[in-house]
Amino acid sequence: MAVTEDKKYVVGVDVGGQTSKIGVVDMMGNVLHQSVIRSDIYGDDADAFISALADAVALCIKAADKEGQVRGVGVGAPNGNYYTGEVGFAPNLEWAAKKSVPFAKMLSERLGGLPVSLTNDANAAAVGEMTYGVAKGMKNFIMITLGTGVGSGIVIDGKVVYGSDGFAGELGHTIAVRHNGRLCGCGRAGCLEAYCSAIGVARTAREWLDMSNEPSLLRDLDKITSKDVYEAAKNGDALSIRVFDYTGEILGRSLADFIEFSAPEAIVLFGGLARSREFLEKPVLDAMNENVLKLWRGKVKLLFSSLKESDAAILGASALAWDL
Amino acid sequence: MAVTEDKKYVVGVDVGGQTSKIGVVDMMGNVLHQSVIRSDIYGDDADAFISALADAVALCIKAADKEGQVRGVGVGAPNGNYYTGEVGFAPNLEWAAKKSVPFAKMLSERLGGLPVSLTNDANAAAVGEMTYGVAKGMKNFIMITLGTGVGSGIVIDGKVVYGSDGFAGELGHTIAVRHNGRLCGCGRAGCLEAYCSAIGVARTAREWLDMSNEPSLLRDLDKITSKDVYEAAKNGDALSIRVFDYTGEILGRSLADFIEFSAPEAIVLFGGLARSREFLEKPVLDAMNENVLKLWRGKVKLLFSSLKESDAAILGASALAWDL
Repeated sequence: MAVTEDKKYVVGVDVGGQTSKIGVVDMMGNVLHQSVIRSDIYGDDADAFISALADAVALCIKAADKEGQVRGVGVGAPNGNYYTGEVGFAPNLEWAAKKSVPFAKMLSERLGGLPVSLTNDANAAAVGEMTYGVAKGMKNFIMITLGTGVGSGIVIDGKVVYGSDGFAGELGHTIAVRHNGRLCGCGRAGCLEAYCSAIGVARTAREWLDMSNEPSLLRDLDKITSKDVYEAAKNGDALSIRVFDYTGEILGRSLADFIEFSAPEAIVLFGGLARSREFLEKPVLDAMNENVLKLWRGKVKLLFSSLKESDAAILGASALAWDL
Repeated sequence: MAVTEDKKYVVGVDVGGQTSKIGVVDMMGNVLHQSVIRSDIYGDDADAFISALADAVALCIKAADKEGQVRGVGVGAPNGNYYTGEVGFAPNLEWAAKKSVPFAKMLSERLGGLPVSLTNDANAAAVGEMTYGVAKGMKNFIMITLGTGVGSGIVIDGKVVYGSDGFAGELGHTIAVRHNGRLCGCGRAGCLEAYCSAIGVARTAREWLDMSNEPSLLRDLDKITSKDVYEAAKNGDALSIRVFDYTGEILGRSLADFIEFSAPEAIVLFGGLARSREFLEKPVLDAMNENVLKLWRGKVKLLFSSLKESDAAILGASALAWDL
């Protein structure tokens, strides 16, 4: 994080399926100015989207009054590859769903050569957590992002693990349930993501409602979201509380295996579902400690991201740019 | 691997439960001289064993005519910790079964201050494979040792992963079978080691013989070892061949999850059971590719260690000493 000359600011960009967020960030992790653009109105025209994004980045830097003082741009994007700077075959990004787009190169060109670093969204979150969040100063931890899907960013010896091809850390697609596992979006069965994502939680609730006549606050709802399950649990709904117990147990068992891989100091949970901490923390921790080798029992911390929700994704992406 | 002055040799020590092997190794990985001492005649007296080992190391250096030319000693030992240089709570080493022994420090003192580096046996094997074997030049691979137990050494960005405490890479104790899993020596159920070790293979054969009346060459044996299963398979024994299919399938499924963690270029199999390559390779590879995310299907190599069997453990341990 050596900062030379007068380039004391970075830009973080969080690319999502519907919107992309942009922020100018200082060395303390303060977001000085931020803006949002749509990501879903460009069809499959990657060039049009990236041009619009470059304009928005330039405007954001101008609005923060930091022209000429920005060191680089860090981007977190689904399926983003740190090594190649490409975004490819990302089902939720129409302009990169069926091809691989040299995103970092294109964005840099449209910003007059400003350096651009890119990684996937979960790795960006891990970098953000290590730079500004609960993992500050930690050298070995695993970030699990519990959102629509389950992502992960693995940090070993202070560095994000990218592996031989830049795609390491697909822990959401390790197999959590081998016996009659649920079908996952990736086409296989039993993936962690099929159980411990927001969609997985809603699916568990729906399955359990269909399987019994147990009264539940969720029965009246047409479509159940993980937020509904959380609200119902807060209102004492027994079935909803058990859904979190079940989700937490599956997650905790998988975390035990992850610990055996890299012996992290902590696991950090991040993303929408991590906000259900009051219902998830105990079952996750219990299952993790029950299933891990004795050596690590009670020793690995379970942390919940403390980054301000609206800034988290931007901060994570921006942290990448300090190394540019 | 920068070698200064005239210290052009290293010593490798492979500490086992019954015997410990010592070898003087040159920069090309040639074992110039080697010797063996018993490890199991010292009871719980760590001091006596380490003193005997130091004498044997000194003698071995003398016999190789390399006195004064040895850079350091690399040791691979069960439960060896790279960070602390300790060997502790290793069930198969009586002198370290119930306590933690400052092995590297004690051995160095008894060798007049010669530097000693220590790690566990599987990590030593990974270092050996990277320095002299099939993983030469690879930056990202996972070594799986299939012996009495199942060990692992994970290499990321050219470095062995030790994690926050030096104990990373216990992949033999990730859960391979969650549903009615077999009891493992670690006290938990369903560990990879309970199925894919030499003991696991023998156990599968025994279970299947007990469950059916199927004719098999193994029926006449009092006690079945994995070597017996291999010999029977070579003689066309259908049950024995299926034991390898089953073992390979479980291993391959677990390897798929490991790939999702660190995106290695290759998986390297090592140890006694890896010699059953002709029966294991196909089922392992099939299950690995069938169970891994599409992204990696058909892309990750499955390699079998090519290090000369008698030298492999010594070479692995010795390779550690080049960094001293």
